[in-house]
Amino acid sequence: MAHTQPSSTVKSPTLDRLQSLVRKDLASVDQVILSHIDSGVPLIPKLARHIIAAGGKRLRPALTLLSAKLCGYSGERHVHLAACVEFIHTATLLHDDVVDESALRRGSATANEVWGNKASVLVGDFLLSRAFQLMVSDGSLKVLRILSNASAVIAQGEVMQLTTANNPQTTEQEYLEVITAKTATLFAAACELGAVVSAQEDKEDVLRAIGLALGIAFQIMDDTLDYVAEQATLGKSIGDDFRDGKVTLPVILAYARGTTEEQQFWTRTLEDQAIEEGDLEKAMKIINKYRAITDSITLAESYCESARKLLAPFPQSPEKDALLETIDFCTQRAY
Amino acid sequence: MAHTQPSSTVKSPTLDRLQSLVRKDLASVDQVILSHIDSGVPLIPKLARHIIAAGGKRLRPALTLLSAKLCGYSGERHVHLAACVEFIHTATLLHDDVVDESALRRGSATANEVWGNKASVLVGDFLLSRAFQLMVSDGSLKVLRILSNASAVIAQGEVMQLTTANNPQTTEQEYLEVITAKTATLFAAACELGAVVSAQEDKEDVLRAIGLALGIAFQIMDDTLDYVAEQATLGKSIGDDFRDGKVTLPVILAYARGTTEEQQFWTRTLEDQAIEEGDLEKAMKIINKYRAITDSITLAESYCESARKLLAPFPQSPEKDALLETIDFCTQRAY
Repeated sequence: MAHTQPSSTVKSPTLDRLQSLVRKDLASVDQVILSHIDSGVPLIPKLARHIIAAGGKRLRPALTLLSAKLCGYSGERHVHLAACVEFIHTATLLHDDVVDESALRRGSATANEVWGNKASVLVGDFLLSRAFQLMVSDGSLKVLRILSNASAVIAQGEVMQLTTANNPQTTEQEYLEVITAKTATLFAAACELGAVVSAQEDKEDVLRAIGLALGIAFQIMDDTLDYVAEQATLGKSIGDDFRDGKVTLPVILAYARGTTEEQQFWTRTLEDQAIEEGDLEKAMKIINKYRAITDSITLAESYCESARKLLAPFPQSPEKDALLETIDFCTQRAY
Repeated sequence: MAHTQPSSTVKSPTLDRLQSLVRKDLASVDQVILSHIDSGVPLIPKLARHIIAAGGKRLRPALTLLSAKLCGYSGERHVHLAACVEFIHTATLLHDDVVDESALRRGSATANEVWGNKASVLVGDFLLSRAFQLMVSDGSLKVLRILSNASAVIAQGEVMQLTTANNPQTTEQEYLEVITAKTATLFAAACELGAVVSAQEDKEDVLRAIGLALGIAFQIMDDTLDYVAEQATLGKSIGDDFRDGKVTLPVILAYARGTTEEQQFWTRTLEDQAIEEGDLEKAMKIINKYRAITDSITLAESYCESARKLLAPFPQSPEKDALLETIDFCTQRAY
């Protein structure tokens, strides 16, 4: 699964640089989050803590914090806006768990498995409302516009994903529309907010575009790694999308390039959901036969390259280096 | 099921006065709603139209329109804010259908029966986001604060309702907390917005309080009518809450006043959900034995009376008459 690509570092890129730059602010974001999920209804903080604790890399709020620093910001508003971004992301995860009937997220039981679909939907609604309350406290209509637009586009992307689910004839174009809406839009908003909070209006568009490209690359890689066997040896689950009937880029490329018999395989497994023993291995074999992993990574890399070019004009700084390494990390995660 | 109560009219109150006063504006609200549910993803307007078309009396947006007129408002902002209120209400209905697994709402199939839980959750998210986009276009942080607060409180009320569901030992106090949060809060916000849009700051609190009292009375009556046999002869379904294991005021009163044997009946039917043939009839018999319908209506009427008193200082106007009749209608709906 070797692939070569331009890289600004020799050793594998990590998120260490990003995380050390925003560590203190990210701890403040966690404080803001914890203080705002408190409620007279005990199930709310209980369930919200569960999903937020499982919350992985905090990549989206970190991007808001880093973008603000990149623009020279030194106040405290970015912490609150990063919390808004994480609330919106968490609400989406909660509703996504419900709608996907996924039993596991990052290896631990999903909130809806533990407390039921009902609670996941309603606590998601609560977190989304909390995000808007926090924005209102911040007091910027521009921030409210950016995040209410993002929220509407994310919902549209999720609905569009529903209508493409189980359809192996989904086009690459449709796939890109879905992931742009459901994933990249929040990355874009997260980065744009860094410019907004710093009152650097001339940097809003470019940071938004960097976030958008990064988000598209991130989602392509996420979808691609689900079919990479080496992931399993690293303790990550693979084949989740296959079992859910999600039609992602590796499948789209393999379907388009496949024989009639292979296309029938995709129809049986993804559309009819009639998955048999050994089908995941067969899927991965067909995907590799048509170089669909390599080509998916190449496409992700092209979005990373756009992001790098957009970032080039920024003056040298630790924040710029960290963002560049975050971009590299996206397509060169360990596997 | 006769009950006597103070009333400002001799014949049965209706919503006719309210509806004729706001008919034109309500048609504009429908236009705003229809133009804002359009989306590149066809499933969204399809599903949203289904739930909005089934949307009943449009009581909440009508209250915003009427309150604005009551405060002498003559612009167009109230139409957009009424649409926001209806969007929030519709999103709640969509998520409520999912979480209640209710197959029918107002006699037609619920959206989640037709398109699945997934779509209902996501289209609900879309409508809520649209509401916030509309508020941002309106440009008032005060409006955004009122409706983001309402949205958070509604979600908390819905989660609290989950934790009281199936528990016949729920107290009257807990019940009132739930319905205040999940229902009355949006009525309160709907009325308050009428004062906000008219820049009548001194009327914000009183209109909010009127909406709150009206909303509590409305929900108590809604819950009570679910156990009133005459409703069935009017073509309305009864016993829905009983079958869902919802613990509402008539049950709370009957449980508290019942014998050990009767309490065991409520535990079996509502907590254990082991409902047998004839149990609804038995439930209604116990409820009537303890005058729980009459006492529920009396409590609703006491909230209506508070609303009337709060409205009393307003000068005589067609809008005041319409609001008074709406308050009367609440506890004197036909049965």
